[in-house]
Amino acid sequence: MSFNTFGKIFRFTTWGESHGPAIGCVIDGCPPNIPLTEKDIQADMDRRRPGQSKFTTQRKEPDKAIILSGVFEGKTTGTPISIIIYNEDKKSRDYESIKNKFRPGHADYTYFKKYGIRDFRGGGRQSARETASRVAAGAVARVVLKKILGKKFNVIGAVTQLGLMSCDKSNWNNAQIRKNPFFCPDKKSVKLWEKYLLAVRKAGSSCGAIIELRATGIPVGLGAPIYSKLDTDISAALMSINAVKGVNIGSGMNAAFLSGEENSDEIRKKSGKIKFKTNHAGGILGGISSGQDIVASFAVKPTSSILTSRETINKKGKNTNISVKGRHDPCVGIRAVPIGEAMINCVLLDHLLMHKAQCG
Amino acid sequence: MSFNTFGKIFRFTTWGESHGPAIGCVIDGCPPNIPLTEKDIQADMDRRRPGQSKFTTQRKEPDKAIILSGVFEGKTTGTPISIIIYNEDKKSRDYESIKNKFRPGHADYTYFKKYGIRDFRGGGRQSARETASRVAAGAVARVVLKKILGKKFNVIGAVTQLGLMSCDKSNWNNAQIRKNPFFCPDKKSVKLWEKYLLAVRKAGSSCGAIIELRATGIPVGLGAPIYSKLDTDISAALMSINAVKGVNIGSGMNAAFLSGEENSDEIRKKSGKIKFKTNHAGGILGGISSGQDIVASFAVKPTSSILTSRETINKKGKNTNISVKGRHDPCVGIRAVPIGEAMINCVLLDHLLMHKAQCG
Amino acid sequence: MSFNTFGKIFRFTTWGESHGPAIGCVIDGCPPNIPLTEKDIQADMDRRRPGQSKFTTQRKEPDKAIILSGVFEGKTTGTPISIIIYNEDKKSRDYESIKNKFRPGHADYTYFKKYGIRDFRGGGRQSARETASRVAAGAVARVVLKKILGKKFNVIGAVTQLGLMSCDKSNWNNAQIRKNPFFCPDKKSVKLWEKYLLAVRKAGSSCGAIIELRATGIPVGLGAPIYSKLDTDISAALMSINAVKGVNIGSGMNAAFLSGEENSDEIRKKSGKIKFKTNHAGGILGGISSGQDIVASFAVKPTSSILTSRETINKKGKNTNISVKGRHDPCVGIRAVPIGEAMINCVLLDHLLMHKAQCG
Amino acid sequence: MSFNTFGKIFRFTTWGESHGPAIGCVIDGCPPNIPLTEKDIQADMDRRRPGQSKFTTQRKEPDKAIILSGVFEGKTTGTPISIIIYNEDKKSRDYESIKNKFRPGHADYTYFKKYGIRDFRGGGRQSARETASRVAAGAVARVVLKKILGKKFNVIGAVTQLGLMSCDKSNWNNAQIRKNPFFCPDKKSVKLWEKYLLAVRKAGSSCGAIIELRATGIPVGLGAPIYSKLDTDISAALMSINAVKGVNIGSGMNAAFLSGEENSDEIRKKSGKIKFKTNHAGGILGGISSGQDIVASFAVKPTSSILTSRETINKKGKNTNISVKGRHDPCVGIRAVPIGEAMINCVLLDHLLMHKAQCG
Repeated sequence: MSFNTFGKIFRFTTWGESHGPAIGCVIDGCPPNIPLTEKDIQADMDRRRPGQSKFTTQRKEPDKAIILSGVFEGKTTGTPISIIIYNEDKKSRDYESIKNKFRPGHADYTYFKKYGIRDFRGGGRQSARETASRVAAGAVARVVLKKILGKKFNVIGAVTQLGLMSCDKSNWNNAQIRKNPFFCPDKKSVKLWEKYLLAVRKAGSSCGAIIELRATGIPVGLGAPIYSKLDTDISAALMSINAVKGVNIGSGMNAAFLSGEENSDEIRKKSGKIKFKTNHAGGILGGISSGQDIVASFAVKPTSSILTSRETINKKGKNTNISVKGRHDPCVGIRAVPIGEAMINCVLLDHLLMHKAQCG
Repeated sequence: MSFNTFGKIFRFTTWGESHGPAIGCVIDGCPPNIPLTEKDIQADMDRRRPGQSKFTTQRKEPDKAIILSGVFEGKTTGTPISIIIYNEDKKSRDYESIKNKFRPGHADYTYFKKYGIRDFRGGGRQSARETASRVAAGAVARVVLKKILGKKFNVIGAVTQLGLMSCDKSNWNNAQIRKNPFFCPDKKSVKLWEKYLLAVRKAGSSCGAIIELRATGIPVGLGAPIYSKLDTDISAALMSINAVKGVNIGSGMNAAFLSGEENSDEIRKKSGKIKFKTNHAGGILGGISSGQDIVASFAVKPTSSILTSRETINKKGKNTNISVKGRHDPCVGIRAVPIGEAMINCVLLDHLLMHKAQCG
Repeated sequence: MSFNTFGKIFRFTTWGESHGPAIGCVIDGCPPNIPLTEKDIQADMDRRRPGQSKFTTQRKEPDKAIILSGVFEGKTTGTPISIIIYNEDKKSRDYESIKNKFRPGHADYTYFKKYGIRDFRGGGRQSARETASRVAAGAVARVVLKKILGKKFNVIGAVTQLGLMSCDKSNWNNAQIRKNPFFCPDKKSVKLWEKYLLAVRKAGSSCGAIIELRATGIPVGLGAPIYSKLDTDISAALMSINAVKGVNIGSGMNAAFLSGEENSDEIRKKSGKIKFKTNHAGGILGGISSGQDIVASFAVKPTSSILTSRETINKKGKNTNISVKGRHDPCVGIRAVPIGEAMINCVLLDHLLMHKAQCG
Repeated sequence: MSFNTFGKIFRFTTWGESHGPAIGCVIDGCPPNIPLTEKDIQADMDRRRPGQSKFTTQRKEPDKAIILSGVFEGKTTGTPISIIIYNEDKKSRDYESIKNKFRPGHADYTYFKKYGIRDFRGGGRQSARETASRVAAGAVARVVLKKILGKKFNVIGAVTQLGLMSCDKSNWNNAQIRKNPFFCPDKKSVKLWEKYLLAVRKAGSSCGAIIELRATGIPVGLGAPIYSKLDTDISAALMSINAVKGVNIGSGMNAAFLSGEENSDEIRKKSGKIKFKTNHAGGILGGISSGQDIVASFAVKPTSSILTSRETINKKGKNTNISVKGRHDPCVGIRAVPIGEAMINCVLLDHLLMHKAQCG
């Protein structure tokens, strides 16, 4: 059992609440002798960090990841890597007005019913702040994967749907993704998205998003059959992210609408290399990587922390109303990009080690 | 690690290949003193069994589930329940023609690359025959859940999309589902679906499907935060089923298109009971059940075992073609209904026991 | 959690009761492409089998291990290996007289209190019959270890203390162990032991035993720090065997009586090889194998199934007496030798795979 | 897999090296709503703390345990409890002289061979400093057990053998244990032990120890059969402590020398209560607690950090000598008492939660 631990061989355990002194993670099973510095981790932390544009929450967090153990003379030792991130911008008083109310669409009600505890300070453990720890763990996984798989390995995520606005995926450009505040892969969509999201924010509303992840340079053979399929673990990894409601591998839900002729990714040998003619499978067949790009996507729901008043109940079970005051986050999905990347990095490294264990 | 085991406290391990002497499962962690007979299991086995209509594979399997251990004088003992299902209709010779070819869209290529073994007999372990063991385990879970949660507890699945044909979910009727060969919940759609699927079969083609699962009578509080969220485990459970490519919880992928106003399920207290005004969340908030119905759906891709010749390679890496001869299964998604139900039953029982452990 | 599963990567799950139709195990995580036959397993099964001499129980069981899955064309496939052993000599009526009594020194009372079930048929799941499944799993582990580590790898167990009778370990002879019914490594002790045990049996009494296990050809580096130490897992493996009450690694409990000078195994490099001058550590330092022989021993208590009447209570909580009728097993420890070997083989293979995963 | 995690439901993960900035643990699965303060933990930390008498290492560590998460308004929340302990007295320069040498009897050689890393600073992760984290986790377990089981619950450990000096266990006095620096339960032995250990220290030598643990107020029914037996998990827990080489449950290794008549703990009902006439089983039958006191003991080897020069090799594989300079720890076993208590508390709570899950 592992409430707060993810992974099988490369495992990480996260801890900490939104408004406690700190959050962090402990990574176990990391291969030894891999060069690793706090800088490697900070680069990913910074991409997730709030307050970087007008489109994300204004909480100011430096989110500095500090390594407390597991690295000696610049290299991983094979023992647990403990990473701590101090909470610096925690204003508990902001939550006084909603202290005894359950925010609809949040986990306030279910946490209270389960544990008998109402940690009103930003939701405590249920806060998306926990995802900072995942990003730290994912950064370590990425460094290890790069070391083992080489330069051809890459994982990149992008927002491909911002509320009602789609983008043209045929314009996908990895370099573009890091140049706009939406992680949008299509340069042409950026301006439209900006207008759209500003309108959503002005209306005091919020919108959802779809994030697509692409992993390249993955060898054939990763994934274990039946209950540890690579796509099973990717699905669990992505669905465990706050506010995620759907996960697709390759064609995903759309596979239902395809015919067998369309959906079968035909295989060809060309100039000594095996190539698939299409990639409806998202790079995974029978739970095992095929050598194609791994493609997964997930949907993030719109936050229900909006300006419009919503009906709800309070701790005593009485009917009441609730609304968010001041600035809010019009699309929480945007910041899910580095989190999705982190999770898929962790799954891939975990399966790489599993594969080595049984078949290496 | 658990390649072939599912669950945390209520765990089952499956074993066996499509064309070996038998398949089966071992269930561990089942509560003691629960009345259980082979009949309880057989009812579910029969719903999954092939060869029951012209729309599913013609393999004739009685699929009789035999309990070898863990039940004494009609009650579970708390020790492992071993269930065996003999393979009776296994014609290995049928596979001679494709012995050395990799069927595109199947796991032939990836299994061979991973293990260096080509078990050509119906795909060996990769065959959907494994799912019979899941249905047996799920039947045990259902019996235990009924005993603990009482009559209000129910899990029912239905096909809501058959290839390009949708149904009208506002006509959903549980009783109807078991009356047609498609597990369709909308009586009006049955005739159209029949025509459609006959046409697909005649064309030698295949189509995908979407299955929706609804669980009622689930208490608030099931699910553990972060990496053992109830939806995380449901997602993993469903994605582990053969040919599944997408999983939705509640609004699922469509959550991306909703506004925060639409998506927040408002809460009301009425005549002493807590009610949600909508159920976009699918009964799960922050990974924990809210007391609403749990709603999940998943997409099954169309099988690529079709009459049309497809390009592929053989074991030696040479280009070749492949096509299925004789009758085939036009929509493998139909038989996924009892499998999906089985998996969600197992997840729900597992989380019920986990909740008792920590908070009971 | 894993009530009935042992291991982390090479895992096996056992099932079955003493008097059900069969017992068995499912092995998961076995490397693929290892030649394996039922004969490989049967050799070990035969060494554990009861009824082979006048010193062990007279239950007649052929104990034939049948492979149901996971082996194709003579080689492991990397998928679950299911092994079944039918119970043939199960005379439930023998247990009628003790049906409602709790045998002292057995788990009758605790199982009844835990599960509310009294499976009186030979103790049901608590019976040492379960160990036949371990021996089957251990045989598979041994075959894999031999394949990977080569001929220098060996695990051998012996009885070094039979009740009050010790043997001279300086006479240890591997070949001798298999030549006498006591698994005694010292030829000179065999006759004395025979006399002693006959006397114990005649008196209707029973005695305990100490079994020592020696593994050679183990590479340096197996074992993971802290909670997956090699000795931690060996200790758990041996203590999980029925009737075992103590486990020693190397000097074991006697380490308490040594001085730091005696106990430190000094290290020398000689003709290019690293040698330890002594082996008080039993081949394990800090939980990691040192390349020396792994040495572990464990004590098996005398069975309390004896002819002398013992005081106990019945299911209703009333005071009563109990005694075993007919022939009994004067030293259950003897048959623990192949079981101990099996368990240590499983631990060693599991750690070899774990080491490959993280450091390979 | 869980290199650095212990437990199944109540789980803790430890991290940190002897000479890094801090060590700590993350506790998962703790029941919610249990009053818990840092003081509860500190009391146990202080009992393990070094430098408290002339008989333990002179490293000065306040060992202040700080709770970073999982407690809100004085009560556990059911989410991870992260505890950090800063390393304050870390003089890395002390290790310069042995930087490239492997201390015999320590894990220097095996860690280096496994990971290719030589963390010479006090052994890094292999240091017994890690056990401070266990004591913190054990303190939390103790608080929860007290809350659930009430006042009759208690776990107490004592040194019953100090090198060649035994004590008279019939004089066992719980109150006495905390009054002398040896955790000796027999007042009469204290003076003799003091003389003995001073002599050992003066000689620059070291001695081993046996620690006995007694748990009272444990309900019948804890423990799961076969591979999660209560004694299996206790055995693993104790063997995972640094320098432990042997573990006994009840009669332990001595069970080998008993007859069936002596060893069977007869059962009687007296004035409505079930009593066992003896407790050779150490309170555990078939892996399940019987309601008697749980009795376990373990042996700690003498440290090989002694003044006498010992032969060893260096990192380059060259023969050399090594000896400890300055003060040393004549009996590391003494400080193992609170560690053993901590581990058994964790195992007991874990099994209590497991029992609730399946049978509650």
